[in-house]
Amino acid sequence: MNRSEIESSLRWRYATKLFDPQKKISAAHWETLSNALVLAPSSYGLQPWKFWVVQDNSVRELLSREAFDNQKQVVDCSHFIVFSMKLDFNVGDVERHINRMAEVRKSSTESLARYRDFIAAGVQRAVAGKYIIPWMSRQIYIPLGQFLTVAALLKIDACPMEGNARRFNEILGLKEKGYWGLCVCAAGYRIETDIYATAPKVRFEKNEVIAFL
Amino acid sequence: MNRSEIESSLRWRYATKLFDPQKKISAAHWETLSNALVLAPSSYGLQPWKFWVVQDNSVRELLSREAFDNQKQVVDCSHFIVFSMKLDFNVGDVERHINRMAEVRKSSTESLARYRDFIAAGVQRAVAGKYIIPWMSRQIYIPLGQFLTVAALLKIDACPMEGNARRFNEILGLKEKGYWGLCVCAAGYRIETDIYATAPKVRFEKNEVIAFL
Repeated sequence: MNRSEIESSLRWRYATKLFDPQKKISAAHWETLSNALVLAPSSYGLQPWKFWVVQDNSVRELLSREAFDNQKQVVDCSHFIVFSMKLDFNVGDVERHINRMAEVRKSSTESLARYRDFIAAGVQRAVAGKYIIPWMSRQIYIPLGQFLTVAALLKIDACPMEGNARRFNEILGLKEKGYWGLCVCAAGYRIETDIYATAPKVRFEKNEVIAFL
Repeated sequence: MNRSEIESSLRWRYATKLFDPQKKISAAHWETLSNALVLAPSSYGLQPWKFWVVQDNSVRELLSREAFDNQKQVVDCSHFIVFSMKLDFNVGDVERHINRMAEVRKSSTESLARYRDFIAAGVQRAVAGKYIIPWMSRQIYIPLGQFLTVAALLKIDACPMEGNARRFNEILGLKEKGYWGLCVCAAGYRIETDIYATAPKVRFEKNEVIAFL
């Protein structure tokens, strides 16, 4: 793929403040965006997550009131996605992954037993050591990064937000569903008058963020 | 950008097990990959991170011995990158970001005072509430996601690993430099005999990971 096209897409993207409520992401583009979520890499391929697309306008209104400064993006964007991790992640989830692996790769679960035991031991250590939640909560930012990159390539605007996680989760009842949202992303199309659209991107110098050892 | 090309790139990528030690990423491709790191989004644009590219072979050998199962990727890949967060992240880092914003956007720091105070208050709350480290440690997975996506688009292979973080940090002396590595990524080119290269990708069904509300 063309390098300059990739780089110009990454420079083109910005945390969109104003979305055009009239412009919706097409079914074809959503197909690619949602596949970017499904295909995102994760530790051991465990996919300890679920993505919630909030379509109900009244729910979006409720969420918007909890977002900082009544962020209009929540209501005006085309697709509003909540990135959540699975709570109570445990060896049962490893089993589920291994079963899926056997199904997709047409192999027996017996042949995957050693691999399953290895991953299960890691997950059990993380549960016992109480670092399973921080571990899984970091993972969810991989699909966020992939989603934002693919959106930019498709010239779809996006605005990731962390906002008021606790209230967002309460409104959506995610905890009762066994999940916990850590970040959200509004996606759609900018209004060209958004003054932030053309503001120069602020990044530290490359030699300040990349070092060679 | 072409949707099918994006999707086929995402399906083409896999956690590469065998890298060809003879094949190096070109300077031009590294330019795009490193720009993907620099341009990665972060909360408030704070970029609470640093990326370390380990070139020294003897250091890579040391790291390899600490990686699970002596992962050969560490030594054989073209570029080995450590994704680290800045430790002791505080209001001084907010100042630095605001100063950079004033520089890039040719505005006065005075005009950014309210914005600075808002972000600084958030960072201070996170420091006081002791959730600054988890917050910043999640952020570092955004550039990881962006890096893996861009690498796939460039047909560059990659293998993200979390491995033995503590020993990796010790060997590289990152803590003394004020940083803490959370994940690493080997990048380069696969050996075509890597049996995992052609194994079907294992993902849950889309309707199991994406839900509509």
